[in-house]
Amino acid sequence: MKITVLAGGVGGSRFLLGVRSAYPDADITAIVNVGDDMWHVGVRIAPDLDTIMYTLAGQNNTSRGWGRVGESERVAGELRAYGVGWPWFTLGDLDLGTHLARTHYLRSGLPLSQVVPLLTSRWDLGVTLLPSTDSEVETHVRVEGGSMHFQEWWTRHRASLPALAFDFVGVSSAVPAPGVVAALAEADVVLLAPSNPVVSIGAILAIPGLADAVRATSAPVVGVSPIIAGAVVRGMADACLTAIGVSTSADAVALHYGARSAEGVLDGWLVDTADDAAVAPVASAGITARAVPLWLSDDATRAQVARDAVELALAL
Amino acid sequence: MKITVLAGGVGGSRFLLGVRSAYPDADITAIVNVGDDMWHVGVRIAPDLDTIMYTLAGQNNTSRGWGRVGESERVAGELRAYGVGWPWFTLGDLDLGTHLARTHYLRSGLPLSQVVPLLTSRWDLGVTLLPSTDSEVETHVRVEGGSMHFQEWWTRHRASLPALAFDFVGVSSAVPAPGVVAALAEADVVLLAPSNPVVSIGAILAIPGLADAVRATSAPVVGVSPIIAGAVVRGMADACLTAIGVSTSADAVALHYGARSAEGVLDGWLVDTADDAAVAPVASAGITARAVPLWLSDDATRAQVARDAVELALAL
Repeated sequence: MKITVLAGGVGGSRFLLGVRSAYPDADITAIVNVGDDMWHVGVRIAPDLDTIMYTLAGQNNTSRGWGRVGESERVAGELRAYGVGWPWFTLGDLDLGTHLARTHYLRSGLPLSQVVPLLTSRWDLGVTLLPSTDSEVETHVRVEGGSMHFQEWWTRHRASLPALAFDFVGVSSAVPAPGVVAALAEADVVLLAPSNPVVSIGAILAIPGLADAVRATSAPVVGVSPIIAGAVVRGMADACLTAIGVSTSADAVALHYGARSAEGVLDGWLVDTADDAAVAPVASAGITARAVPLWLSDDATRAQVARDAVELALAL
Repeated sequence: MKITVLAGGVGGSRFLLGVRSAYPDADITAIVNVGDDMWHVGVRIAPDLDTIMYTLAGQNNTSRGWGRVGESERVAGELRAYGVGWPWFTLGDLDLGTHLARTHYLRSGLPLSQVVPLLTSRWDLGVTLLPSTDSEVETHVRVEGGSMHFQEWWTRHRASLPALAFDFVGVSSAVPAPGVVAALAEADVVLLAPSNPVVSIGAILAIPGLADAVRATSAPVVGVSPIIAGAVVRGMADACLTAIGVSTSADAVALHYGARSAEGVLDGWLVDTADDAAVAPVASAGITARAVPLWLSDDATRAQVARDAVELALAL
């Protein structure tokens, strides 16, 4: 079975752990958001790709929620002493190894989609990672009086500055990375991870041709709600949803994605049992919804959510 | 008093310690070789500038002879795990902080000569560092069957592959960095540090216009022999001298530099007392030579060599 997952960082990586655990023999491909990527102190940062790589490799820092386990900050101390970089954005030493390796390959002329397998081959991830695009499309946040990289808005300001809009800078000339359209076309099941609907899944779907490829696949497309009981499971996705006029609820996000039958991307939608009331309005929009426990708290619950998503897809 | 010193890395930094110690009130400028510089795993390495900066800052690793004291290699371990970079060329974590800061500024569009003061301002060096040029002029070594960056020949092969020639790649279109010609023109004394005559001082003098500026200054120009008793004090400069047909002796190096009166760059030349016999042949070429103890073994001897060089210059 070929399972293709659209994924952001933290939510995406936890969901992928569940898919890998539930379907160890499946051919699993993740199409990963690159909108959070940026050049910083001369190296290319790719937060979502790295979070997923580290998590699937068992190398992620589970207590902190980002970066590598056993991390140190020797280089970051020097950068601070030189007054270079953002004081609120610390690059760990182990993490910098990844950034330098990526930068080395990018500077040698390879596109990101060829760099990713050179980095992931170090571990047995059990999931093929594809960047959504090889182009440098960066998510910027428009706020009162200006605009900033998503990373600054998210990490420095903790999403506290009211966002007026999100710009995917450079998106109009971007195309899906090699393998992305095929991974959707050849899939038996396409899943949307419970990632940020605006700056993760939204940034993926904003790549010209990518949403069309989701709509064109013969595979069923099922999404997993990142909203449980009217609140975001993690992160500050509510601030992002508010900015684009979508309320923080499981049904509002499904309606935002829309039914494939009506130029959207979803055939099915999983909501948490706490959001049972969302099933009917979602269904009336042409999306088959089902309420199941959605908390990805351990391996067993993550695998069960993945099974529920795939089984809903195969039942459509 | 304005003292301008042409300097490579290790020999240059030890000599500069002596100049600073002997003349704490002088305005000391070092014109530093950049021929060993290179792009490596996406960052710009500048070994001679960094060796001098670390040494003058008291941050150098004196037992190892290169890099920072208290260094660690967390990032390098990751690069090895990714199979990126040269396994025989280890980048320390603290050192990488410098490389990343430099790369950050270079990628933002600043020329190296503007980047250097942004890095050195962190410490009170007592010496102004100027790169010989802002251009990326790299020393490559021609060997039987090919060519390689100087760093590979020097560090990986320990200068054991017979060098046929040294190419300063890109030198023809290079110009001295801003401030270099003025530092020579306005100097009261110009000194050549006991650095490698071929790939350090030679690479500096190869920048078009730079040797002319040395010849044009009204200041006396005195060099310090890097050869003592027919042997190199450190490093493998003999392999470099052999490649350009210069024998490893204090007089041969002086004659290679040549007298200013005969299109060379020297007015005076310090040799070690062990090389007393070199004084006459050097003098007959129009260069005033003097034999003094040249071992830069501690602060007192380093300062004495600097005083001997300056006093010879002022006596000319």
